[in-house]
Amino acid sequence: MEKSEATTSIEIAETSRERKGKAALLSGVENEKAAGFKRGVAIFDLILRISAATATLAATITMGTTQQTLPFFTQFFQFQANYDDLPTFTFFVIAMSLVTGYLVLSVPFSIACIAMPLVVGPRLLLILCDTLTVTLATTAASSSAAIVFLAHNGNSDANWLPICQQFNDFCRRVSGAVVAAFIAVALLIFMVLLSALGLKRH
Amino acid sequence: MEKSEATTSIEIAETSRERKGKAALLSGVENEKAAGFKRGVAIFDLILRISAATATLAATITMGTTQQTLPFFTQFFQFQANYDDLPTFTFFVIAMSLVTGYLVLSVPFSIACIAMPLVVGPRLLLILCDTLTVTLATTAASSSAAIVFLAHNGNSDANWLPICQQFNDFCRRVSGAVVAAFIAVALLIFMVLLSALGLKRH
Repeated sequence: MEKSEATTSIEIAETSRERKGKAALLSGVENEKAAGFKRGVAIFDLILRISAATATLAATITMGTTQQTLPFFTQFFQFQANYDDLPTFTFFVIAMSLVTGYLVLSVPFSIACIAMPLVVGPRLLLILCDTLTVTLATTAASSSAAIVFLAHNGNSDANWLPICQQFNDFCRRVSGAVVAAFIAVALLIFMVLLSALGLKRH
Repeated sequence: MEKSEATTSIEIAETSRERKGKAALLSGVENEKAAGFKRGVAIFDLILRISAATATLAATITMGTTQQTLPFFTQFFQFQANYDDLPTFTFFVIAMSLVTGYLVLSVPFSIACIAMPLVVGPRLLLILCDTLTVTLATTAASSSAAIVFLAHNGNSDANWLPICQQFNDFCRRVSGAVVAAFIAVALLIFMVLLSALGLKRH
């Protein structure tokens, strides 16, 4: 009787250990799968981040260096167009350099997401800051787009004449900067959506 | 010996059932906690959604009904300003009515998130669509803001005169619509951030 009890108690202990072992193995496989998915998302996020940073840098530099001096002048006046003649373009340069700075500074966090795919902290921080950045970039891009549209077409009702007929080169560069900004916005939106998907499967 | 084995086998069965019961109880408590948190987030989301819909509706109506006829006229011409004289304002009205429509249609999904707080589907759908909506609303608000700024201040370098000196009332209404749109954008951003937080604790 004594001996039989001892045997069964050992049996119980073994069964419990076996069960625990199986559970750990199962959750380990699941974790491995989730980690793989999250790492893939994080790598894609890093690529998108670097592309977006390149696009915003290009937009900033293109806009910031835009100026055109017309080859003819009167006795008192030389016709010159500079990006900071229009306050909206100045805002564009400031906002886009801020976005570029943020994107460059956020690269280490994105790398941290690749290294530790199951840690939620850096990913959540990135998605929050990215959402605000998308809004800032969109504001800069679309307000400048409105002004560029006006510069190209003018508005007869408000009696605003198109300036692109004279400042052809100026308008072309500014339009290029706005297009680059919109490409960056599209990449950023895609980044936020991807991060939200990556956050889900936890 | 026979009897003792039978007893121990019953003991094992009991222990195993007890353990399972405890585990279920524990995960039940955790689920209850998570569900409470998620339900709170969902209720807050619904309130924000309705507020944002109200703000965008107000912006749409204010902008869409803006027109001003000046009290003096020449022999051939009566001075009149209408919101659709400026294409940017037409875009504003279209984009803002789209945003309002989306927000109203998304209310049932938000209610579904309150009713079933642990289901991920509707919440994920909402966060994806909300992000796109934020961008659309921001585009409309900021491009109109750029034009309103121009209407108020003009631009001497481009030779665009401010039209607000004549069309005082027109400018005031348009500015009001833009402010309402920016309030809606702020509410929408807050909604996306909140949804991301709600998605995290799963």
